[in-house]
Amino acid sequence: MTAHSIVDLQTPALLVDAEALEYNLVTMAAARPGAQLRPHVKAHKCTTLARRQAAHGHHTFTCATIREVEGMVAAGLADDLLLANEVLDARRLGALEARVTVAVDSAHTIAAAAAGGVREVVIDVNVGLPRCGCAPEDAGRLADLARATGLSVRGVMGYEGHAVGLDDRATRERLCEESMQRLLAAHAQVGGALISAGATGTYDCNRWATEIQAGSYALMDTAYAKLALPFRRALSVLATVISVSAGHAVADCGLKALGMDHGNPSIDDATVWFCSDEHITFAAAAAVRVGDRIRVWPGHIDPTVAYHERMHVVSGERVVDVWPVDLRGW
Amino acid sequence: MTAHSIVDLQTPALLVDAEALEYNLVTMAAARPGAQLRPHVKAHKCTTLARRQAAHGHHTFTCATIREVEGMVAAGLADDLLLANEVLDARRLGALEARVTVAVDSAHTIAAAAAGGVREVVIDVNVGLPRCGCAPEDAGRLADLARATGLSVRGVMGYEGHAVGLDDRATRERLCEESMQRLLAAHAQVGGALISAGATGTYDCNRWATEIQAGSYALMDTAYAKLALPFRRALSVLATVISVSAGHAVADCGLKALGMDHGNPSIDDATVWFCSDEHITFAAAAAVRVGDRIRVWPGHIDPTVAYHERMHVVSGERVVDVWPVDLRGW
Repeated sequence: MTAHSIVDLQTPALLVDAEALEYNLVTMAAARPGAQLRPHVKAHKCTTLARRQAAHGHHTFTCATIREVEGMVAAGLADDLLLANEVLDARRLGALEARVTVAVDSAHTIAAAAAGGVREVVIDVNVGLPRCGCAPEDAGRLADLARATGLSVRGVMGYEGHAVGLDDRATRERLCEESMQRLLAAHAQVGGALISAGATGTYDCNRWATEIQAGSYALMDTAYAKLALPFRRALSVLATVISVSAGHAVADCGLKALGMDHGNPSIDDATVWFCSDEHITFAAAAAVRVGDRIRVWPGHIDPTVAYHERMHVVSGERVVDVWPVDLRGW
Repeated sequence: MTAHSIVDLQTPALLVDAEALEYNLVTMAAARPGAQLRPHVKAHKCTTLARRQAAHGHHTFTCATIREVEGMVAAGLADDLLLANEVLDARRLGALEARVTVAVDSAHTIAAAAAGGVREVVIDVNVGLPRCGCAPEDAGRLADLARATGLSVRGVMGYEGHAVGLDDRATRERLCEESMQRLLAAHAQVGGALISAGATGTYDCNRWATEIQAGSYALMDTAYAKLALPFRRALSVLATVISVSAGHAVADCGLKALGMDHGNPSIDDATVWFCSDEHITFAAAAAVRVGDRIRVWPGHIDPTVAYHERMHVVSGERVVDVWPVDLRGW
């Protein structure tokens, strides 16, 4: 499978810059060592990359789907897995020989966790983002209910997702603090060792959480890149220019190779016009020739990775490894 | 694998409404029987669905990727496959025991087809959409070059993609006609039996093409649904409501289950607020309860299907079949 040079790769192909990834892992491990970071595998869906995060000292992980939890267990990265999401059928989780904790935010999800054979939960608290999570004032009642159901309550989690992507650092910090005050109020009612929160965007300003669920820092993307965080863009999609016309060129990287919810991807020294299923049409500042290889920078890493079967780890133009994206699906 | 009811499905799950699909296949086969339609498999990436199209009389198919061509050959649907896209490395195509035709629009792609062992090509002509395709006036020269290289030139193709999605039928028809005049001018220089063009949006007004490369008609989506075409929405994503708060609810269908380039999906009788990796946050007109199953209508079918491993064919609430989405990747 391993090609010696990116020139030999079938395109589109996911590329991970080995040096940028390593830089990001080192930087985060220094800022949030060990269990102060619970890396979120949804951002890369790759157990080989998770193993690199473990090598940097992080042995607790966050997952977004049951498949991700199962894959991490199969890979032996199962010291302490948190499914930071609600599920109504927890039987696949309960069947795993591993420490699996699941988020709950209602009587229904508490009942589902217990019925599925899960033993540990965290109370998911809405800290400002309109998504999952109970109201802070309901957290104590739900923790009591969970304990009465026989579950062990490890603490609380709350995702300040309305804050993490804001360019202005002062606003980001203020909203993060307000969110964490809500989470601490809930935690005072719930108890437990865990106050789990955050993301790449607040890893360095959230000083209330005991652990940060950051995922994007490893590979980064153009949206987070605007925040002046000390992480480097490590993921691109290699494409081949397949057609050149007067005024525009086309490469073979389209909607099925790119997460598009943050808008068009970018190409260095070029303007992207639009993407089709298997094409990207762009105008480049310099001359482009059919057969040229270009790098496309996705707007959003997570849904980009989920389209690809594997990522090619590169050092410059050299392919040094191929990692399966083995946590896809549900 | 087959669940008896959609209630038993793990979510998110791709659902295909059996009656709507059959209605669409019957309707198109009546309008464009046999080889007048070359169904585009990129829209569904499913050889089982392609076999249903063949059962309705269509034995020629369009593909967008080499993997799609390989998968169709493996499924025995290989009478006449057109890769309607340019490739710079055609060796995997040349290795197939099947009739495979590839699009070319430059000396480079002609050389690649010949070097890869492909025997037949069509000249891809730019008919107005800024994507692949040579200028109409270059088509004859490229056909001569292809023939001099030993390739058989079957005709021309040109995709009027700037016209196919326009709501106003008169404008759509006018742009389609202008595009096809360009394609006919190229064809006059190129010769060959094939004048291949079009899409679901112009299947009934493009009277110049010998065959239409329509794909979306089988499953449809909300963007094409605005065009008042006689096809029904057959594809949705089943999701489970996992959290309900004052004013909003959340279901487990997010960015990794939905093509997002056309914007947010829709939910009947609800307003979609936003999607996260594994969540959709929405406000429903009627009361929603945790555990409810809802159907999410994707904005764009093609990149939605590409995220899923299988589609569940349903008749009402009953799952009648499970089809692998076996043409994913490259």
